[in-house]
Amino acid sequence: MRLSQYFLPTLKETPSEAQIVSHRLMLRAGMIRQSSAGIYSWLPLGFRVMKKIEQIVREEQNAIGVHEMLMPTIQPADLWRQSGRYDSYGPEMLRITDRHDRDMLYGPTNEEQITEIFRDAVKSYRDLPQHLYHIQWKFRDEVRPRFGVMRGREFLMKDAYSFDLDFEAAKTTYNKQFVAYLKTFKRMGLTAIPMQAESGPIGGDMSHEFVILAVTGESEIACHRDFLDNDWLDNIDLEGDLQVVVNAFTDKYAATDERRDPEIEKTLGDDLVVARGIEVGHIFYFGKKYSETMGAVVTGPNGEDVTVEMGSYGIGVSRLVGGIIEASHDDDGIIWPQSVAPFQAGLINLKPGDSACDEACEALYQKLIDAGVDVLMDDRDARAGAKFADMDLIGLPWQVVVGPKGLKDGIVEVKNRATGERQEVTPEDAVKKLAG
Amino acid sequence: MRLSQYFLPTLKETPSEAQIVSHRLMLRAGMIRQSSAGIYSWLPLGFRVMKKIEQIVREEQNAIGVHEMLMPTIQPADLWRQSGRYDSYGPEMLRITDRHDRDMLYGPTNEEQITEIFRDAVKSYRDLPQHLYHIQWKFRDEVRPRFGVMRGREFLMKDAYSFDLDFEAAKTTYNKQFVAYLKTFKRMGLTAIPMQAESGPIGGDMSHEFVILAVTGESEIACHRDFLDNDWLDNIDLEGDLQVVVNAFTDKYAATDERRDPEIEKTLGDDLVVARGIEVGHIFYFGKKYSETMGAVVTGPNGEDVTVEMGSYGIGVSRLVGGIIEASHDDDGIIWPQSVAPFQAGLINLKPGDSACDEACEALYQKLIDAGVDVLMDDRDARAGAKFADMDLIGLPWQVVVGPKGLKDGIVEVKNRATGERQEVTPEDAVKKLAG
Repeated sequence: MRLSQYFLPTLKETPSEAQIVSHRLMLRAGMIRQSSAGIYSWLPLGFRVMKKIEQIVREEQNAIGVHEMLMPTIQPADLWRQSGRYDSYGPEMLRITDRHDRDMLYGPTNEEQITEIFRDAVKSYRDLPQHLYHIQWKFRDEVRPRFGVMRGREFLMKDAYSFDLDFEAAKTTYNKQFVAYLKTFKRMGLTAIPMQAESGPIGGDMSHEFVILAVTGESEIACHRDFLDNDWLDNIDLEGDLQVVVNAFTDKYAATDERRDPEIEKTLGDDLVVARGIEVGHIFYFGKKYSETMGAVVTGPNGEDVTVEMGSYGIGVSRLVGGIIEASHDDDGIIWPQSVAPFQAGLINLKPGDSACDEACEALYQKLIDAGVDVLMDDRDARAGAKFADMDLIGLPWQVVVGPKGLKDGIVEVKNRATGERQEVTPEDAVKKLAG
Repeated sequence: MRLSQYFLPTLKETPSEAQIVSHRLMLRAGMIRQSSAGIYSWLPLGFRVMKKIEQIVREEQNAIGVHEMLMPTIQPADLWRQSGRYDSYGPEMLRITDRHDRDMLYGPTNEEQITEIFRDAVKSYRDLPQHLYHIQWKFRDEVRPRFGVMRGREFLMKDAYSFDLDFEAAKTTYNKQFVAYLKTFKRMGLTAIPMQAESGPIGGDMSHEFVILAVTGESEIACHRDFLDNDWLDNIDLEGDLQVVVNAFTDKYAATDERRDPEIEKTLGDDLVVARGIEVGHIFYFGKKYSETMGAVVTGPNGEDVTVEMGSYGIGVSRLVGGIIEASHDDDGIIWPQSVAPFQAGLINLKPGDSACDEACEALYQKLIDAGVDVLMDDRDARAGAKFADMDLIGLPWQVVVGPKGLKDGIVEVKNRATGERQEVTPEDAVKKLAG
């Protein structure tokens, strides 16, 4: 992509309304613009990141056999009256009346809708388990939306729903999502820690929040040091016994602020890590809460009626864009992990109009593209300082700087955004380095 | 994909509420379920088709240098007050009041929103042209939503918006979209005909509807026979002079029902084609309509203020799912063009439980996947007749039928869904045929 033809309105000033670093950086890096309180437009750079995150979430859901579908944003109130939630849900629900005075709502979640679809289609235990997800915009009318996309009113979420015949089957499904979540966040360059969460009316321990570590995180958490090493996750066989994996995580101490236990922490000694975190996902087994009220019943193996066991599994996709920035930035801007970076490399032409620079940049641009490197070339007629600042701000993993001085010696500079390390190499070696 | 583990609730009966063939077939093939009037959930099979269509649209927009972004579904009323459309838009606009009693709306289109984003970011003619698109759900509160996804209330649309310095530049942009649209629809196996449309207050001829031909189409159209041959579109150089291409299409007679001209039609003789069609896209140059009222002004080359020239370019993505079915089906069900088929092939195991059949199917299933063929294997314990009917109904381009009799002779049957042609071949040749 040529920056001169791209839509990337970066800001020099820090917008006054932004209270947290991800919000500031997303506005400054031209990733988003506010449309109204808690509602954002995603400009091309921000959109690219969100799509990469969405795709990782999708691939890991597909890997455990969940099927993608799409439920609409607008739901009928009558559906929520079946579960009793239309009246009990607070003012966060955006209630709508259509032209025929029918009560509708902008879905904050989809348990009712998926239960209706399941109930009307699945009649026999032979068609279980069912496990479906969608990645769809949702709305929660926050009273004071703040913190940019970290707590927006309109937000993109992956929510999966499972239907099983009995508790044992539901537990197997839960474990699949548990492991898929660990893998999903790891692929985004994050350390995610599953934390026991409130289990709701049915009790039990099958409810976990996934919290990623970030110095600027919203809340304090404590956990065993072992959680910081998740390299072994790469080798998990998804067809194997996942209970072992789940146990390896749940046997160790990990607690959100309100659930910390000083007694246990004393025994941990040097193994105790206290850090700040951001919740980015939640998996939840809720048994028959919706299937009972809404009549999601199948015929069991012996001809009897069985009310199915359900769970739901959410990941905040748009929230993660902000969450990753909170976890990975410095004073100069964002530092994107490779897997979610909007482009892999930035190519800075220090002197557009200088024929040697222009030719070298064009050649390098083409070679990088040919080598499969997604590159953003700064070919704007602007000061070198502004180009360096913008490139650091938008945080692409690699920068290649092409200037007249270096070219005389046949070299360009390659900078690693995360480490700050710079190397002077030939254009050929720059391509090799970035393509490798 | 194994059908036994998929969520594909096909229906034997034709739902009584469905008045047109695409609606009937989408319900029967388990592609969609109605959530409320004019609002649908996309089940996994339907979702796959919509995603394929969306991806073709995306690729052809990217190919002409339009940048993808994403605007939110909920917009503030104040934005529409700037253009004057908040009051003039009819009851099709879904008006919403949030918890703080602010007037909001579910966007039926995004001219105001993109103009605001452009206006706040772009200040100089040097940053023109700008050309952006998004693929987002929109809402139009139809008084009597009918015809399934062909005229839903919540619908997915690609809408692009362009900003140019003057009319000549705007025309160049318009021509790019004109050609991109022809290529987009052709890739979906459709014959799309650009039809001069109402140009609105500013006059001129830069407004075209794109109508695809379908025997069950919603309206009658007439055109020159040459429009039926669009093979030469594959060889267009997008960097070349597109005016020639646009002229080749616009010089020939093509008219929607209300604009037909009996005089011209008389002169066409055998070259006249009268057919039924479905509108699936609309491109529209509207000059300064929004830029003037909303103040989208840049500094021109001589320091003067220039109000920018705009156009918008829409494609009904969810509507196309129905449109393609209207254009491609028979009495037994859907006939998917290869490029948008949810799977490339269906593999029917006629006798699950028979070890020869099971083994042959498993082997064939793996080989097809290894050869890059997206295959849906019907491994359900069901009658052969039901399997044949379902496979014809969901309309995958190829069917491979594996039964005990054929296997004794080392053969399987390959059926082409579109032509009905059947061939008995070895499993190896079946793989070659489908992978080729």
